[in-house]
Amino acid sequence: MNIFYQPDNTKNFLEGEEAQHCTKVLRMRVGDELTITDGRGKKSIGTLSEILRNRCTFEVHSLEQLPPLPYEIEMAICPTRKAERNEWMVEKMTEMGVQRINFMMSEHTHRPTTMRVVNMERLNRIALSAMKQSQQYYLPEINFFSSIEKFFEQNAAEVRCIAYVEESVSNRHLFQEIGNQDSVSIMIGPEGDFSTSEIQLALDQHYVPVSLGATRLRTETAAVLACHSVHLAKSRYDVAFQAN
Amino acid sequence: MNIFYQPDNTKNFLEGEEAQHCTKVLRMRVGDELTITDGRGKKSIGTLSEILRNRCTFEVHSLEQLPPLPYEIEMAICPTRKAERNEWMVEKMTEMGVQRINFMMSEHTHRPTTMRVVNMERLNRIALSAMKQSQQYYLPEINFFSSIEKFFEQNAAEVRCIAYVEESVSNRHLFQEIGNQDSVSIMIGPEGDFSTSEIQLALDQHYVPVSLGATRLRTETAAVLACHSVHLAKSRYDVAFQAN
Repeated sequence: MNIFYQPDNTKNFLEGEEAQHCTKVLRMRVGDELTITDGRGKKSIGTLSEILRNRCTFEVHSLEQLPPLPYEIEMAICPTRKAERNEWMVEKMTEMGVQRINFMMSEHTHRPTTMRVVNMERLNRIALSAMKQSQQYYLPEINFFSSIEKFFEQNAAEVRCIAYVEESVSNRHLFQEIGNQDSVSIMIGPEGDFSTSEIQLALDQHYVPVSLGATRLRTETAAVLACHSVHLAKSRYDVAFQAN
Repeated sequence: MNIFYQPDNTKNFLEGEEAQHCTKVLRMRVGDELTITDGRGKKSIGTLSEILRNRCTFEVHSLEQLPPLPYEIEMAICPTRKAERNEWMVEKMTEMGVQRINFMMSEHTHRPTTMRVVNMERLNRIALSAMKQSQQYYLPEINFFSSIEKFFEQNAAEVRCIAYVEESVSNRHLFQEIGNQDSVSIMIGPEGDFSTSEIQLALDQHYVPVSLGATRLRTETAAVLACHSVHLAKSRYDVAFQAN
């Protein structure tokens, strides 16, 4: 099943890359069935009715609004210096399901490198492709904050955890901090870690220091495993998980 | 702390890439302290005593044999068609800690592509670098099997789980299948999934079908999250995890 993206619900056609993918890559024809989503939970099933050069019109014959995850995950990550590592964590978190991916500058984040390697347009395209590939209907929101303070200004999550490397502290695992609350925010430090004052700022914002396991992880691995730990912890509240 | 690799415990020098890394990249000098491992749990701390063009001799002044993980994880994965996706799963599983990574051919694995994209030498180099970067002292063993049958011939794990896409079956999550046994083997299907006869073969070998979560995952993501699920499930038996 091929899922296509049309964020504007008033439009009954694919355009741009989506149209190209439909006609050039998949070579779909008039009469073929396709699934369309707006990335906000809408799932439409339709039939291609007209194919023009850069526009594929479809007729919708079933429409469904899928429920979002019963909990919100917001990741707040200091980007790595390698573009591909930032890109893969966006891909992987999207595959698992995540509502918001925030990249943010920190004291130990290299500003010029970040400006070069965090390409929002590219990250959004990767998230879109991962959403479709993993057959989901919600696209994560990707944001960039110029400082940790700026990120805090908009943060309203109920459970707040921060992962950083500091070998002396033996924190509880993130998995154990997750209860049945509706929203979780997790901060992941940069290469070179958060500064002491940033950690203090986070503690002031009621962030709880957590462990992500026995080994020392790269930023992008930490982000992916943190996101997965939340899903696993949350699944304890899932009736299907319990019943089996 | 920089960790170097010398698999031969009778040699008190670094050679090849390790020597290059020591002198050219890190520009270390005679008298500098370094940590050396054999990738089998040995941690030696020593001092550089002589630097020649392609050989760095050291004097060991402390030696420790670190215990392995109290459980064995063996992953059996049909490789993806993209070299970088195989490489990153090796990197990530090594970061987390894994004993054996087995790549294996399946009916739906494209043979010529696999021969091109599964480069054992390169995968071993990536694992080595990930081991050192994550400050571990055990190097995973990476194997290649020309068929699933060949893999079964050597498999002796106590807990055996297989993850494949089949939407009709709502299996228990891998996390729930892991008890306090000593060894876990997890099979991850290829793009295009295992064939019906391969799934039957695995069932005959007492593999239990498991879920890896609510979303459809790429092979490499499935492998990484499966490995992480085992670590998390196992940590329930960890005194530190319990006590907190």
